[in-house]
Amino acid sequence: MMNSPYKIALCQMSVSAEKESNLRHAESLVDEAVRAGAKVVCLPEIWNCPYDMKNIASYAEPADGPSVAFMAGLAQKHGIYLVGGSIPESCEAGEGADRGCADGLGEGAADGSAASPRIYNTCFVFDPAGSMVAHYRKSHLFDVDIERGLKFRESSYFAAGEGVSLFDTPFGKMGLAICFDLRFPEMFREMAGAGAHIVFLPASFNITTGSVHWDTLLKGRALDNQIYIAACSPARDLSASFVSWSHSCVATPWGEYCAAADARETIVYATIDVGYMEKIRRELPIGN
Amino acid sequence: MMNSPYKIALCQMSVSAEKESNLRHAESLVDEAVRAGAKVVCLPEIWNCPYDMKNIASYAEPADGPSVAFMAGLAQKHGIYLVGGSIPESCEAGEGADRGCADGLGEGAADGSAASPRIYNTCFVFDPAGSMVAHYRKSHLFDVDIERGLKFRESSYFAAGEGVSLFDTPFGKMGLAICFDLRFPEMFREMAGAGAHIVFLPASFNITTGSVHWDTLLKGRALDNQIYIAACSPARDLSASFVSWSHSCVATPWGEYCAAADARETIVYATIDVGYMEKIRRELPIGN
Repeated sequence: MMNSPYKIALCQMSVSAEKESNLRHAESLVDEAVRAGAKVVCLPEIWNCPYDMKNIASYAEPADGPSVAFMAGLAQKHGIYLVGGSIPESCEAGEGADRGCADGLGEGAADGSAASPRIYNTCFVFDPAGSMVAHYRKSHLFDVDIERGLKFRESSYFAAGEGVSLFDTPFGKMGLAICFDLRFPEMFREMAGAGAHIVFLPASFNITTGSVHWDTLLKGRALDNQIYIAACSPARDLSASFVSWSHSCVATPWGEYCAAADARETIVYATIDVGYMEKIRRELPIGN
Repeated sequence: MMNSPYKIALCQMSVSAEKESNLRHAESLVDEAVRAGAKVVCLPEIWNCPYDMKNIASYAEPADGPSVAFMAGLAQKHGIYLVGGSIPESCEAGEGADRGCADGLGEGAADGSAASPRIYNTCFVFDPAGSMVAHYRKSHLFDVDIERGLKFRESSYFAAGEGVSLFDTPFGKMGLAICFDLRFPEMFREMAGAGAHIVFLPASFNITTGSVHWDTLLKGRALDNQIYIAACSPARDLSASFVSWSHSCVATPWGEYCAAADARETIVYATIDVGYMEKIRRELPIGN
């Protein structure tokens, strides 16, 4: 593992209803992040279309679709690691490992209607050669019903993935989680225990829970595991059916933010330092 | 279980070098809390003497000593549950279950010097009849060495307890943890999983870590497990060898404070509502 500090960028991008426009917009932000020196660039949760459950299926595409090809090309063009936020990934009923449903979960929908494709909320990661090095499907789906707040049932639209996903880089091992996964500490324990020094979290909390829980959860996972957590959200769009809390940020192994955005479109930059993480673990030993 | 809300009080008391004076002072605060309607009253970590490692052994007393008898009498006088913060508990080498070293850990010091008593950082809990219903010895000792911050090695002075401690009340099951234990999420997971709806945490964080970590840790444990956490610290004494962060508080199952103090001597009151906890768990189901 190379222990020199490296720069990451979180693209808190505005998302429109036009997929092609979202791809071009993501490209312009990633281009800017790379010019600023970022070696690992992250996109938000559901960045190639609105996070709008009613229409999400119409945007879904398979792992060999255009958005994945676009991300692979972007990583290769710049020679960076690209953590591709998440996109709705379709997996046709009956598809197997040979058609991109690598975990074999694509055999018919949960309701037994074999004709409907399964759709996952999926994060793809690409290395500087443009090769896919990780493929994580959100495993904890957002089903809540909060009085005078928010009612949401992501599991009616998305299928759940399983397990954790880690990938190796010259900067060290990295982990992935998506949004609501943040509420499940065991998942982060497992990734940190397996050697991840940073977890990227494409996310789009809502305002009801984001205003109370976002900081506690992000700082808490970082502090408990003495790792970095980098959370990347879309910019806030008050006209959207789902209004994001936004506030992309990076929590350090000391449990504080070293960089954080408000709700507007921006790129959040941070320097990740494994040496600092190791210092914290020496100074405050709690078993990590 | 009785589901009606009940009132708790956390006595953020000033601590002096005189044990007898500390006992009388604790009594006056508990008296006041009971007059205000508290049914469960909590004292801070190490409240009968200063949290001063060099001298802590001179204050230690066994489980059948005067401080325990005092707490039992106070609980009985008022007909309340008294969570007795913590005190240095001595356990003579060679003592067994018959002399109050109930877990049989008292057979000689860790260094093999059979003559030295072991000292634990122990929380005793009493029911309204004055009977001891829990006896928890801090299991994670505070050993840190933070650059330009704090160097502390509690394990040179205290022995570590083991496991978790729960007790049943008419208000429901309650758990115990002490200060640095707060950094170990599995312990809270275990207590919540066993049915605790509240964990009392006698604590005395320092200013270096308290200013950054206290809120994140308390709100995070409450939020992850969807339980109440009630943390009771001594009041700040800037002339003490160890200066406490203080800031006693109660975090709710929604991960926010419903009551919180600054650093001055005070009593923090909160109403604990198991019905509210159950509502949060229904609205935001994450497996608790």
